[in-house]
Amino acid sequence: MARYIGSRWQQQGLDQVHFVPYQVLLSYPSPTIPNLIKILDSAGQVVWVSAAKQKPLYAPEEASPDIPFTFIGYSAPANVTGDVVYVYYGREEDFDFVAASGVDISGKIVLARYGAIFRSNIVEMAEARGGIGVILYSDPEDYAPEGSNFVYPHSYYMPPSAAPFGTIKLLDGDPLTPYYPATESAFRIPEDEAPLPKIPAQCISYEDAWQILSRMGGPAAPEKWQGSLNVTYNIGPGLRESGWSLNLDVNNNNTMTTTYNVVGVMTGQEEPDRYVVLGNHYDAWLFGGLDPNSGTAAMLELSRVFTQLRNETGWRPRRSLVFCAWGAEEYGTVGSVEWTEQFAKQLSDRTVAYLNVDMAIEGNYTLRTKSTPLLTDVVFESAKKIANPDPLELEAGRKSVYDTWVVRRPDPNEPGLPLMQFIGSGSDYKGFQHNIGIPCMDTRYTHDNSTIGEPQYHTLYETFALASEIYDKGFHYHTAVAAMWGDLAVVLSESKVLPFSLVKYSNFISKAQDDIIERFGPLINSQNISLEHFTNAGKAINESVTNFNKALEYLDLKSALAVRRVNDQLMMFERAFIDPRGLPGRPEYNHVITAPSKNDAYSGTAFAGLIDTLSAIEEAQEEHRNDLWRTFAHHLAAVTHLLNTAAKVLTDDLW
Amino acid sequence: MARYIGSRWQQQGLDQVHFVPYQVLLSYPSPTIPNLIKILDSAGQVVWVSAAKQKPLYAPEEASPDIPFTFIGYSAPANVTGDVVYVYYGREEDFDFVAASGVDISGKIVLARYGAIFRSNIVEMAEARGGIGVILYSDPEDYAPEGSNFVYPHSYYMPPSAAPFGTIKLLDGDPLTPYYPATESAFRIPEDEAPLPKIPAQCISYEDAWQILSRMGGPAAPEKWQGSLNVTYNIGPGLRESGWSLNLDVNNNNTMTTTYNVVGVMTGQEEPDRYVVLGNHYDAWLFGGLDPNSGTAAMLELSRVFTQLRNETGWRPRRSLVFCAWGAEEYGTVGSVEWTEQFAKQLSDRTVAYLNVDMAIEGNYTLRTKSTPLLTDVVFESAKKIANPDPLELEAGRKSVYDTWVVRRPDPNEPGLPLMQFIGSGSDYKGFQHNIGIPCMDTRYTHDNSTIGEPQYHTLYETFALASEIYDKGFHYHTAVAAMWGDLAVVLSESKVLPFSLVKYSNFISKAQDDIIERFGPLINSQNISLEHFTNAGKAINESVTNFNKALEYLDLKSALAVRRVNDQLMMFERAFIDPRGLPGRPEYNHVITAPSKNDAYSGTAFAGLIDTLSAIEEAQEEHRNDLWRTFAHHLAAVTHLLNTAAKVLTDDLW
Repeated sequence: MARYIGSRWQQQGLDQVHFVPYQVLLSYPSPTIPNLIKILDSAGQVVWVSAAKQKPLYAPEEASPDIPFTFIGYSAPANVTGDVVYVYYGREEDFDFVAASGVDISGKIVLARYGAIFRSNIVEMAEARGGIGVILYSDPEDYAPEGSNFVYPHSYYMPPSAAPFGTIKLLDGDPLTPYYPATESAFRIPEDEAPLPKIPAQCISYEDAWQILSRMGGPAAPEKWQGSLNVTYNIGPGLRESGWSLNLDVNNNNTMTTTYNVVGVMTGQEEPDRYVVLGNHYDAWLFGGLDPNSGTAAMLELSRVFTQLRNETGWRPRRSLVFCAWGAEEYGTVGSVEWTEQFAKQLSDRTVAYLNVDMAIEGNYTLRTKSTPLLTDVVFESAKKIANPDPLELEAGRKSVYDTWVVRRPDPNEPGLPLMQFIGSGSDYKGFQHNIGIPCMDTRYTHDNSTIGEPQYHTLYETFALASEIYDKGFHYHTAVAAMWGDLAVVLSESKVLPFSLVKYSNFISKAQDDIIERFGPLINSQNISLEHFTNAGKAINESVTNFNKALEYLDLKSALAVRRVNDQLMMFERAFIDPRGLPGRPEYNHVITAPSKNDAYSGTAFAGLIDTLSAIEEAQEEHRNDLWRTFAHHLAAVTHLLNTAAKVLTDDLW
Repeated sequence: MARYIGSRWQQQGLDQVHFVPYQVLLSYPSPTIPNLIKILDSAGQVVWVSAAKQKPLYAPEEASPDIPFTFIGYSAPANVTGDVVYVYYGREEDFDFVAASGVDISGKIVLARYGAIFRSNIVEMAEARGGIGVILYSDPEDYAPEGSNFVYPHSYYMPPSAAPFGTIKLLDGDPLTPYYPATESAFRIPEDEAPLPKIPAQCISYEDAWQILSRMGGPAAPEKWQGSLNVTYNIGPGLRESGWSLNLDVNNNNTMTTTYNVVGVMTGQEEPDRYVVLGNHYDAWLFGGLDPNSGTAAMLELSRVFTQLRNETGWRPRRSLVFCAWGAEEYGTVGSVEWTEQFAKQLSDRTVAYLNVDMAIEGNYTLRTKSTPLLTDVVFESAKKIANPDPLELEAGRKSVYDTWVVRRPDPNEPGLPLMQFIGSGSDYKGFQHNIGIPCMDTRYTHDNSTIGEPQYHTLYETFALASEIYDKGFHYHTAVAAMWGDLAVVLSESKVLPFSLVKYSNFISKAQDDIIERFGPLINSQNISLEHFTNAGKAINESVTNFNKALEYLDLKSALAVRRVNDQLMMFERAFIDPRGLPGRPEYNHVITAPSKNDAYSGTAFAGLIDTLSAIEEAQEEHRNDLWRTFAHHLAAVTHLLNTAAKVLTDDLW
């Protein structure tokens, strides 16, 4: 696929096309021995065994002999037998509930539902509590709300045989080369020191999950925990039949692999040393009909359009456009993180923004966009320009994707505006946003709320047919996302003055500060820790932004150096929030505002270092609180320092 | 003094003058209880006691009642009694020799000579080996070679009563706020966790040292260790008289103090957001006649000349000139390190170079300059322009300071060139060079080789008279240094293309690599660790520099953005060597090439992280070697990565 993308870019005539290799540790299922879950009776005889592969249902390629055995990336290879415990979504509060019910996870196999948090966090918590294995499935309640007849290929809902793959590595990037690029000359830590799970995990379909759930003993799970499989969901531990047990046999291998990023450049006319980076990964767990190929198609179309425009009109963007096709994203943003580690200095000095499209579509309901507050306005403006791909919406008078977005996903806190999600993590912007502090955006067309996620995500059924026959006949939604992505790239590379919304960021910070004070103020005050400097730093940003914007009105747009100066200040604003020492206990995250909470790498939480520490204090035993308060006070001072830095980078003040 | 400098700059009319405060932990002697060393007889009676203060000899101010008791900064307050051991210069090999002689430092008071290494390292090693106190003195062999009659005020040699003060803090900056600025909102670690010595130390004069040395027992020290006091120097332990002992009583206090930097700016005309920073500290242990006031005078004269030129002609530099007067340098570059921590992001993005003058003169013999290789050529060119302040040298036909420099301090490895010392540490460029990677230079006029250092350095006798009557009647040498400093500032702020010697740096790296291979090649090969990537990275820099310089010939000097682009690349070259994770075991140093060796913070050692680790391996016991080899391999990979980064920042390549 890398070769295909590279040769397309060469054909199209990008100015530079290069393959950037990394030697990384990836995880594969055994080619010969399937990963299986078995129910054993008291004599050890096999009562039931799970499917080794997902069943072909519709598209011819689903029956390909090349389909690998069902597996979870980086699961430890192991064969464990024990009692099973149902932990709902496997969130911290779910594990706590199970423990409070008197069920000890230790020595047990955990059965968890996908959908509320990042699967790596489920496995991490299971391991931390002594679990010996994890089984993950998607409940039809969340992914097949219309029953098992109205599923793929009759709809985009999840069929009973679907088993979503995924990684359970916690840290992004190559596991053996933390902080440094996995080049030939890299130093590699021993594999047993790598932050990888030590217990096996396996995904199964919901028809297989039924086999287990329908046999489970112990007390019934709470009403909320009941899914839509036709059984009573019990917590366990173990199966109803005395002496029966569950066996989990995983035969994965961690293997050193060369993964390639493909980097293509259209060199800028006036500021070739300023980059607008567009990225999408090309690796897929199986066919990747949506993830990532809907995005990859959009990127190839964009590079085609830009090169054709250049060829036909001589146009070039003011700044350079850098197209990146990432390898091994599915394993935990491996290709992009290694690249941002290798080129951190140049990217930090020169990159205006990173625009990520992981999948162009995961539905056809509305736009779903995440970004740093700095890009909110420019995304809104682009979305207003893009013709609505939905004929019913057009009929309803909503001409642009923005119009549908604001109706279907309004911002609950900002009446009249669509919801711009906070950036969080979970795709290739991680290294850009959270380590370097490059303003990032991630967009796609998404589904409605009838499912938690896109139902075929990471399964065998994420086929071209799913994209072209079920979600997007005629590829109108793909086109809309490509058009918006391209418009953003043009605006960011062509605008003389970078169209960043400093005011949005400043307001965002103030609101996040208020939220912390509202939620934790009394707790913090009880320690005589003052928040005054922290809130003053927020005000300093507000004031600095006001002054900067006022001065912008008098900017001499004819002076190349004067324009460059304000653009450099705008460019460095997001960088100001980077702490080279990282968040408390999490040196792999450097951005003190946008780093996600450690309890769920997918979601966005502002000031996660502060909030995670405060949450830990609330839950900690008395004897651990002093250390946590010290951590909090230390990090609060670091955050305050960086907020003040952000206020200063908009000036030439060195005092 | 800060106020004085600030008001001078305001009068002169710098565009911006600001005081930047930090709350830091400094060390002071007791105002009422002197620090004393006593010889006690077997009955505990005092046989002899050291001087509480240095004797007034010449300048009236030496007799001021405000002169503090003699002390060493950050010495632990303590009263200890024990046997004394003479350890020569207190280098690692000296301590090793003492141990090999069968003398155990543990429980002893160490008597060491100043002059070979940074005093903090002497105390660190004494403490690590169980020493209970340290006494530091300067031997007349090193500082009064013409005998005790030809000393201050009859010459610049050291009088018998001189006791040089100094800091023994190991880490630079405020001890309570590592890595972060000591602002009001800073988090402060508890003082007992600060990296400060836990044992007392005290400086004494050589007439007082004679009192101890003349009574010491044990075997005679080696021939080389004999100084020029008229006694046989014995190693000890202890005094000859049975039951006699040494008592060391230090009454210092560590106190939170507000120190101010003064920052003055002359705003640049075309690139106000590019800074050439000039710095000098203003604090002194006592009068600071040379250190720092010879430098402070030069800086005030420079700001006067530049503002007058601006007032009279309308001239402004292309880039901004930033004048910095640092506080608390003597305590371990406290003011400058806190400032570089506070403004690290802006300084990293915008600073072209930092030009330090700690003292303008410490002699009148020749120029002594340290720099990054990047500034070598530009310093040479400036030195050639500066008229020789030495009339005898002028008569000898040497017209410029360069001409004297090349004759009196030739580079042993580069025939025909003067010796440009490698940057090392020990003054206010530390945060700039070693943490941010800003090209730095430090210059002064220095003394000949008849003494190890400037003999009155940090003593009571470093008076205005020493500067104006002994070293520099008419202030010609001061003027020469000021002129060269100013010329460098003008060249660096005015040159359209930054005059950095990439070739020098590239050659320097190659040579340093060759040195490592020559010295440690067989050792490294014994471990099957390949140096190939490391040497290839050096070659990559060489090639990249060649290409960059070739392209420079075609640079369109009329294109402001094209010029800015190459200047940004030049500016970032030194930054490329910064590892945010720091050197092995030394996160307080980030520059992998220029950081000084951990065994002596003053000297310059290229690739100290590699060399220190290899030296440790050579000396380590077998069971510790594996860990050290791992450290070496890990750091070698980091260094290789950063060398490759340096090669790339001169390009737009992201592959």
